Amino acid sequence: MEVSPVYMQSDDSEQDRPAYPRVFPTGEARKSDHLKAGLCVDFPVSVVLPAGGTGERTGLQTPKQFCPFLGRPLISYTVESFERVSWIQTIVVVVAKENTGLMMDIIQRFQHKKVLVVPGGSTRHRSICNGVAALGEQRRPAAHKPKVVIIHDAVRPFVDEDFLHKIATAAKEQGAAGAIRPLVSTVIATTSEGYLDHSLERAKYRASEMPQGFTYDVICEAYQKCTESDFEFGTECLHLALQYCGTNAKLIDGPPTLWKVTYKRDLAAAESIIKETLSQSACLITGGLEAAVALANVLQKAFGALDMELNVTPDLMGDNGRYLLEDWNFIKVSVSFPFN
Amino acid sequence: MEVSPVYMQSDDSEQDRPAYPRVFPTGEARKSDHLKAGLCVDFPVSVVLPAGGTGERTGLQTPKQFCPFLGRPLISYTVESFERVSWIQTIVVVVAKENTGLMMDIIQRFQHKKVLVVPGGSTRHRSICNGVAALGEQRRPAAHKPKVVIIHDAVRPFVDEDFLHKIATAAKEQGAAGAIRPLVSTVIATTSEGYLDHSLERAKYRASEMPQGFTYDVICEAYQKCTESDFEFGTECLHLALQYCGTNAKLIDGPPTLWKVTYKRDLAAAESIIKETLSQSACLITGGLEAAVALANVLQKAFGALDMELNVTPDLMGDNGRYLLEDWNFIKVSVSFPFN
Repeated sequence: MEVSPVYMQSDDSEQDRPAYPRVFPTGEARKSDHLKAGLCVDFPVSVVLPAGGTGERTGLQTPKQFCPFLGRPLISYTVESFERVSWIQTIVVVVAKENTGLMMDIIQRFQHKKVLVVPGGSTRHRSICNGVAALGEQRRPAAHKPKVVIIHDAVRPFVDEDFLHKIATAAKEQGAAGAIRPLVSTVIATTSEGYLDHSLERAKYRASEMPQGFTYDVICEAYQKCTESDFEFGTECLHLALQYCGTNAKLIDGPPTLWKVTYKRDLAAAESIIKETLSQSACLITGGLEAAVALANVLQKAFGALDMELNVTPDLMGDNGRYLLEDWNFIKVSVSFPFN
Repeated sequence: MEVSPVYMQSDDSEQDRPAYPRVFPTGEARKSDHLKAGLCVDFPVSVVLPAGGTGERTGLQTPKQFCPFLGRPLISYTVESFERVSWIQTIVVVVAKENTGLMMDIIQRFQHKKVLVVPGGSTRHRSICNGVAALGEQRRPAAHKPKVVIIHDAVRPFVDEDFLHKIATAAKEQGAAGAIRPLVSTVIATTSEGYLDHSLERAKYRASEMPQGFTYDVICEAYQKCTESDFEFGTECLHLALQYCGTNAKLIDGPPTLWKVTYKRDLAAAESIIKETLSQSACLITGGLEAAVALANVLQKAFGALDMELNVTPDLMGDNGRYLLEDWNFIKVSVSFPFN
């Protein structure tokens, strides 16, 4: 297996900027943010995001991971979901060779960090395998071989730290873990002539979703042992871990927001979630005045109690200009001194 | 089984009004409209639309079938999809008793015809069963006991005549027929402890969707023979037809637009499809002038060639005022006579 990783950014384990660009926690996650101090992962975790898809099912020319939402490509939202998690070291984005330049532009424009761009293979499994291999080949001083690798889809932008924590922890304990969701439709087996053979009892089955987590050793062993046919036609990493490593993955119920942007209609659905989240966050510019800062602090607490996010900045100069990169609800505070 | 049907409209087999309110053919359907003359069904077909759901999964107070899209409830779009099909006799809408008044208002406001409102049961199967029973009890002179009953979901508004024709024809031949779609996610079997047991080979399975069609005799027999447990926990009419009538349904690949509005995000997706379709239709007001009418005819042909719909009306007075009931792209034609 030949991989030519393109290093995009140094791997800062220290997050040296606030949680921006926009973050998209689900309702559940927003509530749990209050408890975030309790989420602790004391082993190295990295992420592989296969993003080589061509987006055939959306019927669009641009692969859906690169489709813009409010001026920003879908994959940038996904990268951000991982980037803001302090205990995630490296985010490997695997893209088709012809999209490497596009991906590098996105990383630069939206100031993404911790990202490593790796060329994809001809199938999903080959791409994931390239991504995993690149994690073992990192030669940078700060890089550790990860204990756990999380695999996610570039086209599932709404994943929160809570759920990632569950997956990473279970993967470390069990060797593999994956998100599941209830089945929306009944699943039926068909005869070769196109007739109903039988329907499955819905309660016994689940839809396998992303993210999934594996110990680095399990996922490497699975890809070393699996066949060309698995690389060509397989769809499920959990299945490879079971078949080649004897690892029965722990399955964890995920929130509905984990769904995958697949059809054209999903683009509208994703945009609506992004817009709804935007309406629950704001940027407040105080001008640096003491009274305005005091007010901002009160507002920030009040927003927090409503599960809304308020970012406070004295101005938009210098480094604070980064707030202009994103869509915000801006609040301007005017302080008047009636007795002056 | 006790059913108190509420008759809303006489059953006009003759469509006495143009194809409005708005129709939402998919791209495929629009193309096939040109061939519509070839779609002929020479046996009586009626429809049952269970609409008793409470919409829990959208997280909204209003059940999703009653949520407004561009000022019109979702169920009105679904009813319309069937209403415009000339060979469909009666559309039975089964609603929770407390929503009967709401449904009657919708029928009146959007001038729906051929609709029969029937009170629902405590489960989906009980509701469908009530709807089927009501079709057998119709005492109106124009009503025939249907040869085929199509069962559909109120929350799948985008179904086109072509596909209904396929389902109705296959149901008459085979006793039962149902729409299927490829699986979006891998389906996995779980152990009772929440671990992966095995994953299903995706190629052998399909998601069972709606519409489904049954001969009246098959669906009646299935409901007569099935158990209380089926009524309480069963989800799949095709399964009942197989188990109690020995009927292996014919399975037919449906378009992606058949998907079911299930989660909150689906509301945005549905709205985007409605808006996109609206952008492909217009209402042209000629003022009745000969030159404008001639121009309108030319435009209508040009729109048709582009798979777009153009409705032409001399004015918006009297009965033509109905065009104001819907959202349109209005085109005003101004004819000037330079040599007059």
